[in-house]
Amino acid sequence: MSSAVLGVDVGGTTTAAGVVTPEGEVLVDACLPTHRGGPGTAGRTIGELIEDILRRAAAEKLNVKGIGVGVPGIVDPVSGRIGEEAHHVPDLRNQPLASRLAERFGLPAFVDNDVNALALAESMFGLGRGVRSLVVLAPGTGFGAGIILNGQLVRGAQGFGGEFGHAPVSFEGRPCWCGSRGCLAAYASGRGIAEAARARVAADPGAALRRLAGGDLANISAPLVFQAAAGGDPVAGTVIDEACRALGAMIGTIVNGLNPELVVITGGVAASYAPLEKQVLDAAAQHAYSRALHQTRIAIEPSDKRLTLRGAAALVLYEMGRRRL
Amino acid sequence: MSSAVLGVDVGGTTTAAGVVTPEGEVLVDACLPTHRGGPGTAGRTIGELIEDILRRAAAEKLNVKGIGVGVPGIVDPVSGRIGEEAHHVPDLRNQPLASRLAERFGLPAFVDNDVNALALAESMFGLGRGVRSLVVLAPGTGFGAGIILNGQLVRGAQGFGGEFGHAPVSFEGRPCWCGSRGCLAAYASGRGIAEAARARVAADPGAALRRLAGGDLANISAPLVFQAAAGGDPVAGTVIDEACRALGAMIGTIVNGLNPELVVITGGVAASYAPLEKQVLDAAAQHAYSRALHQTRIAIEPSDKRLTLRGAAALVLYEMGRRRL
Repeated sequence: MSSAVLGVDVGGTTTAAGVVTPEGEVLVDACLPTHRGGPGTAGRTIGELIEDILRRAAAEKLNVKGIGVGVPGIVDPVSGRIGEEAHHVPDLRNQPLASRLAERFGLPAFVDNDVNALALAESMFGLGRGVRSLVVLAPGTGFGAGIILNGQLVRGAQGFGGEFGHAPVSFEGRPCWCGSRGCLAAYASGRGIAEAARARVAADPGAALRRLAGGDLANISAPLVFQAAAGGDPVAGTVIDEACRALGAMIGTIVNGLNPELVVITGGVAASYAPLEKQVLDAAAQHAYSRALHQTRIAIEPSDKRLTLRGAAALVLYEMGRRRL
Repeated sequence: MSSAVLGVDVGGTTTAAGVVTPEGEVLVDACLPTHRGGPGTAGRTIGELIEDILRRAAAEKLNVKGIGVGVPGIVDPVSGRIGEEAHHVPDLRNQPLASRLAERFGLPAFVDNDVNALALAESMFGLGRGVRSLVVLAPGTGFGAGIILNGQLVRGAQGFGGEFGHAPVSFEGRPCWCGSRGCLAAYASGRGIAEAARARVAADPGAALRRLAGGDLANISAPLVFQAAAGGDPVAGTVIDEACRALGAMIGTIVNGLNPELVVITGGVAASYAPLEKQVLDAAAQHAYSRALHQTRIAIEPSDKRLTLRGAAALVLYEMGRRRL
């Protein structure tokens, strides 16, 4: 029997699970709607997926050594509890998921923030192979990040490590839905871009973006704003320009403050940023020490659900030691 | 003979050296003007101080096991060379100081940024004892910082780790002397505060701060601006208010992104911030996750040259292992 680990990537909508080899190959996988049993049933879905995958793994004579779960929330590294900020999986809030899974399945289990898991995946299987320090920035609906420095995941004292999404890029800037102002997410996430565009269109009855949205502000989404900006719409152009400059500023903060070898921009909105790479890098260059920036690889990589799943598995490899598996 | 290490704290004006025990006690010390032999003689001063201290240490039967040097600049952790940004010690730029000292004195030698050394001092001998993760913010003339995460110093790939002074707190903000804009240093360092106040006074002939400065803008220093703000001067008050909000924003970025157990604000301007602690913490609270901030100790600690000297010694203890000394 060959050894492998089980990874579970819990999303707000869909949850995927699979058996992953120490080399990162996904051998057996499945996915289900996270809340298939109704609102607040994420925990049950996770359990069903793990059961199903373990059964299939046994049939394939795969020896599963541990379970890793990436969740859209903050996980306290000491208590193992998922933070109250995890609005997409309300039934998991304040739950010590790892110890519950370990007990139920009789396997070592590890739970961490999904972008932390993604950073481990980049480090083990992705662009970060051979790299000691990297930061993953993941603009999606919100804005996550994961940090690996000196070869170690930066979880922080309570698990907030990497929460640059609600770090300020402008301390007197735009209000954010979190109640603060000037957050990176308010400028450069999908929700931030859509909200900023709606506010501008609401104040500008003649905006072309209003027509593109069929006259309904609710139809203004981040992809539509990127598309309108590419088509020359000035309102959308301003919003996307600010998004690029804010993202570049955060890259500057990261390059100057943490000086990693690699910064990966991925997540749901990354593909929209890809054609604007020069604009983002120019903004970063305005803020970063040029000597540091020139030696940092900055890559925009469209989101890859498979990599996130492998990241959940990477949590097990990271915690248990890849070689000792 | 008892074992100890030799620390050298190289400042733009004064350089101090001393023998420090593994417990952080300074036994023998001395200091000299950094450029006592004329401009660009820092290297020679360092050598003379080390010679003098080693002679005195031998007389006191102290067994010096290694030399640590904190410099006002970026030190490449791979090549050991001091970066070209080290304007205060021009003769040391691009020099591999550690290997030169090791060769000359026949002892292991380690050179690092002075605020990195200070972070190690806080960790070993100061407020950070028993703490795995801390960030030192050091507003002085400029603005340095040092980071320890998971018990390890964050040097970064080229040694820029901790350079939050020129990280943006406002990507569309105030121009900075470094050529960028919105840098933390432009708002919250001694030079940033003085320059901002001068610019405001130049535009406001009736400003009380002008009279306090004896009519000469060159006399406007950061301490004078803090003093005028405390006395109710509105121009100075605006500048100091922005300084506190910018500093609070960076604390927010650090608490959210790195989630350390401890943030220490020290350096030459720290004593001026001490009476404004509430203002700084309120600004941090606007940006940081309250759950993370509430569990972070934030301390404003007036600068202590002795701690910086002990930090230089701490570099040796960190690199060689304190217990193996």
